[in-house]
Amino acid sequence: MTDSRKPVFLVIGAGAGIGGNAAKRFAAGGYHAVMARRSDEAGLARLVGEIEAVGGSASGTLLNAAEDGAIEDLVERTERDIGPIHCALYNLGAQIGNRSLDQTPHRIFELGWRLATFGVFRLAHALFPLMVERAKTGAHGTLLVTSATAAMRGNAGQHSHAAAMGGRRMLCQTLNAEFAPQGIHVAHVVVDGPVRSPDTLVRLLGDKWDMFEAAKGKEGIIDPAVLAETYWHLAHQPRNCWSHEVDVRPWTDVAWWNDNPDPRIDSKGKGFAGPSA
Amino acid sequence: MTDSRKPVFLVIGAGAGIGGNAAKRFAAGGYHAVMARRSDEAGLARLVGEIEAVGGSASGTLLNAAEDGAIEDLVERTERDIGPIHCALYNLGAQIGNRSLDQTPHRIFELGWRLATFGVFRLAHALFPLMVERAKTGAHGTLLVTSATAAMRGNAGQHSHAAAMGGRRMLCQTLNAEFAPQGIHVAHVVVDGPVRSPDTLVRLLGDKWDMFEAAKGKEGIIDPAVLAETYWHLAHQPRNCWSHEVDVRPWTDVAWWNDNPDPRIDSKGKGFAGPSA
Amino acid sequence: MTDSRKPVFLVIGAGAGIGGNAAKRFAAGGYHAVMARRSDEAGLARLVGEIEAVGGSASGTLLNAAEDGAIEDLVERTERDIGPIHCALYNLGAQIGNRSLDQTPHRIFELGWRLATFGVFRLAHALFPLMVERAKTGAHGTLLVTSATAAMRGNAGQHSHAAAMGGRRMLCQTLNAEFAPQGIHVAHVVVDGPVRSPDTLVRLLGDKWDMFEAAKGKEGIIDPAVLAETYWHLAHQPRNCWSHEVDVRPWTDVAWWNDNPDPRIDSKGKGFAGPSA
Amino acid sequence: MTDSRKPVFLVIGAGAGIGGNAAKRFAAGGYHAVMARRSDEAGLARLVGEIEAVGGSASGTLLNAAEDGAIEDLVERTERDIGPIHCALYNLGAQIGNRSLDQTPHRIFELGWRLATFGVFRLAHALFPLMVERAKTGAHGTLLVTSATAAMRGNAGQHSHAAAMGGRRMLCQTLNAEFAPQGIHVAHVVVDGPVRSPDTLVRLLGDKWDMFEAAKGKEGIIDPAVLAETYWHLAHQPRNCWSHEVDVRPWTDVAWWNDNPDPRIDSKGKGFAGPSA
Repeated sequence: MTDSRKPVFLVIGAGAGIGGNAAKRFAAGGYHAVMARRSDEAGLARLVGEIEAVGGSASGTLLNAAEDGAIEDLVERTERDIGPIHCALYNLGAQIGNRSLDQTPHRIFELGWRLATFGVFRLAHALFPLMVERAKTGAHGTLLVTSATAAMRGNAGQHSHAAAMGGRRMLCQTLNAEFAPQGIHVAHVVVDGPVRSPDTLVRLLGDKWDMFEAAKGKEGIIDPAVLAETYWHLAHQPRNCWSHEVDVRPWTDVAWWNDNPDPRIDSKGKGFAGPSA
Repeated sequence: MTDSRKPVFLVIGAGAGIGGNAAKRFAAGGYHAVMARRSDEAGLARLVGEIEAVGGSASGTLLNAAEDGAIEDLVERTERDIGPIHCALYNLGAQIGNRSLDQTPHRIFELGWRLATFGVFRLAHALFPLMVERAKTGAHGTLLVTSATAAMRGNAGQHSHAAAMGGRRMLCQTLNAEFAPQGIHVAHVVVDGPVRSPDTLVRLLGDKWDMFEAAKGKEGIIDPAVLAETYWHLAHQPRNCWSHEVDVRPWTDVAWWNDNPDPRIDSKGKGFAGPSA
Repeated sequence: MTDSRKPVFLVIGAGAGIGGNAAKRFAAGGYHAVMARRSDEAGLARLVGEIEAVGGSASGTLLNAAEDGAIEDLVERTERDIGPIHCALYNLGAQIGNRSLDQTPHRIFELGWRLATFGVFRLAHALFPLMVERAKTGAHGTLLVTSATAAMRGNAGQHSHAAAMGGRRMLCQTLNAEFAPQGIHVAHVVVDGPVRSPDTLVRLLGDKWDMFEAAKGKEGIIDPAVLAETYWHLAHQPRNCWSHEVDVRPWTDVAWWNDNPDPRIDSKGKGFAGPSA
Repeated sequence: MTDSRKPVFLVIGAGAGIGGNAAKRFAAGGYHAVMARRSDEAGLARLVGEIEAVGGSASGTLLNAAEDGAIEDLVERTERDIGPIHCALYNLGAQIGNRSLDQTPHRIFELGWRLATFGVFRLAHALFPLMVERAKTGAHGTLLVTSATAAMRGNAGQHSHAAAMGGRRMLCQTLNAEFAPQGIHVAHVVVDGPVRSPDTLVRLLGDKWDMFEAAKGKEGIIDPAVLAETYWHLAHQPRNCWSHEVDVRPWTDVAWWNDNPDPRIDSKGKGFAGPSA
């Protein structure tokens, strides 16, 4: 059910993890959540149901974001049929696991770009002119982008993912540079740790999830409902104090810029690489 | 007035800007705020009064953070006389304006380090062992560090400030690497824009403040009360989703990594520095 | 004229600036230079002639790098007809000047990626398996990538360029992570200043070149023949001491991470954004 | 023996590793090398002897860089008694191995800063005014700074080292910003791997050196004589094309920004932290 008096929160990539939990948080805060994902209509309906069960307002739609016109059409339909999008969350990634270069065909590399870089460009292209108009009268206009460590540095095996996320990070900066002074807040959130995402990590690990969870320890995996609070905070920072880049990780996780605290690392002499007196 | 049943929020560098406003926010949220600053006992008393007037709990003390033992003593007294420090904000900087190298004497350079780098080290040295003990039973333990653009890159004239803030940023990373897994959240907040700080920027600009404010435009200067909300958010992120580095700036400010949008920049050909096809 | 006893230096993007001068430097050092560029057969012939006139060995070919199969075919033909490529320089960029988002159509954004990101991926895909085989017996294997400031941060108006270069930078890191231990040296050179490039910057400025040159002052513009010495140095670092990322700029240019030294910047109060004591 | 007709290359931190090899390279290239180190007069004499044996010119002196006036006095004596310093290499570090915060006393933290940050400031303070004068007539003026990974990110256990190196990196940027346009080239070289340094790493590992060397494999440890070639290259880049920051590591070493390629890392799920479609 839609409620045209509410501001709209649009999520592209609305699984049961980050996207769905962000939708729940914004719905709880008074937004109508529009959730788009590639497949699993039942999963979408479940999310809508969960939001409505606690008095929130939400709707869902399937979307192939890589398809020409799909994102543009989604923005147009949402604005026309539901209401002005005050905040959008681009939550599609392009993680395909580690693959060596010869196991990364051209079409995979291109698809990574299409989903993780080009999709953000297309969303901004379609949505920002509308947001700019509304921002002139002081309305909210926010683009949240869920990002990953691969946007900060390129690890082995991450050719497609890192190139796509690195391009996206720079795009978030160019969008911020052009549109922040026009009233659109662009925030790039570097998720630098595992997320309890039923549709991705949990499914992927399957049988091994329990072992993984035990190994990570208490509060060792990002709870997407908790991350959603940070999204909510970012989306509601007043104009005089906007954050553009924020990182998050569980307390027990090693930050991407740190070495793995493996005792063998020290034995490699890295700690003694510095110049001598 | 102190209330030993409340968790303590300790601010080192509690002027009427960021420090004082963070104290107000944490006091409003149920903390007892301990505010330390170098001078202006009247200003301190005024802050305490403002907090108490709205039902909060606070106390203040003068502190020369550069003095041997001063920070250590403050931590000890606070823990003994008031209560366990659950969150500390290190809000001392070392900005002295732009000075060429020959106008930056040795003692100024050293003082910058003493206030902006060594002080954080000393605070952590004195406070973290206590926080670690308490974190074992799940208690909060947070160190917020107000930082500046100079921690990210060294501009001309910023020898003392940038060296001190750059050292501090790396220190925040080493502290985070050692203590996050022990339950202490270290957050480094890069303030990349001007702040409406009565005791620093406003005083410094004096007569020119009105002109400056007009030039920056509506919401063009960071409101420290707004920044305090981000501090509050960071200090209360659950352990599974901690941010370590966050930037903030007004919507109309150019991010530090971007060029000044001066039309003359394009005329310098920087935009065409890239390789040719 | 080709000389199959010489190692091959392949340049993709061989105009009269960086690409052509790198070809000259490597030819002078004993390589056969294969120069590929999109157009201007006469310009290519002139470069070949200049190299041969001083006793070097070179050949040229036109290439539309955005076309399917073009880069792959070039690698195959070169290896088959001329000799093993010991060093390749990817010198194509995607700078199109500053354009606001609404002046950046989808196909421009895609073309930027195709030239600046996907082309590097395709070159590595085609060339690295051959280089890896040769590196097993100790042969050189080097990929030099000319990069730009836009790979480091996204300025306003640089949506297409920055996204493409940012993706490329991450790709250079993933390639380095996978292939450095297999004997291929990947170097990402951040050209952070204007280059005296007859086919791009000089042509673009046209009548204004003289004024620009005068404004930049003595040695104020990167001489591509000088940059070629750094390329040569990088390509010949022994395996125990490889550089991955190197920046260059003229002495009088402001580094990308620094503010433009415009006196008005100080008047914006940026210098006083830091926390107060 | 000194030769006043030669330009002077001054090394602060001239052990048998990076410092000594840089001295040899510059002496071979026509400089008189002045080598300063804290102790081991015999080692110094041996380095001087080795340089003179191949026809070079060098002299040595003991120096406690942490002592007030020591660096200033060294610069003055060198300029007066030997000749103008055209290039200086600051090669002192502050690596003390990994120590937890409670094992890092205040004086150790301060000493790190004094050697690794303040020393660079003092050297620039004493030397740059002289270099600036000479640069007006086109003379070389170069400051090379050997840096370490700790300047880029702070690992656990590196409180003293990372804070000192991080401050130094920012200082190199402020020095570059002020003095590059005055003709002084400042280069910050990030040594991101182990160096075959007889006075530090080799001595430190002692009996374990052979095992370490075998584990690193062929060309797996930076040869300081090879690194000296990069120093030479940097110091002789013409003014129109200066590098400020350069990294180096052995081909088999993992770059600091990459994860350790430990198979257990993937099992931590880091690779799947990204957002889901």
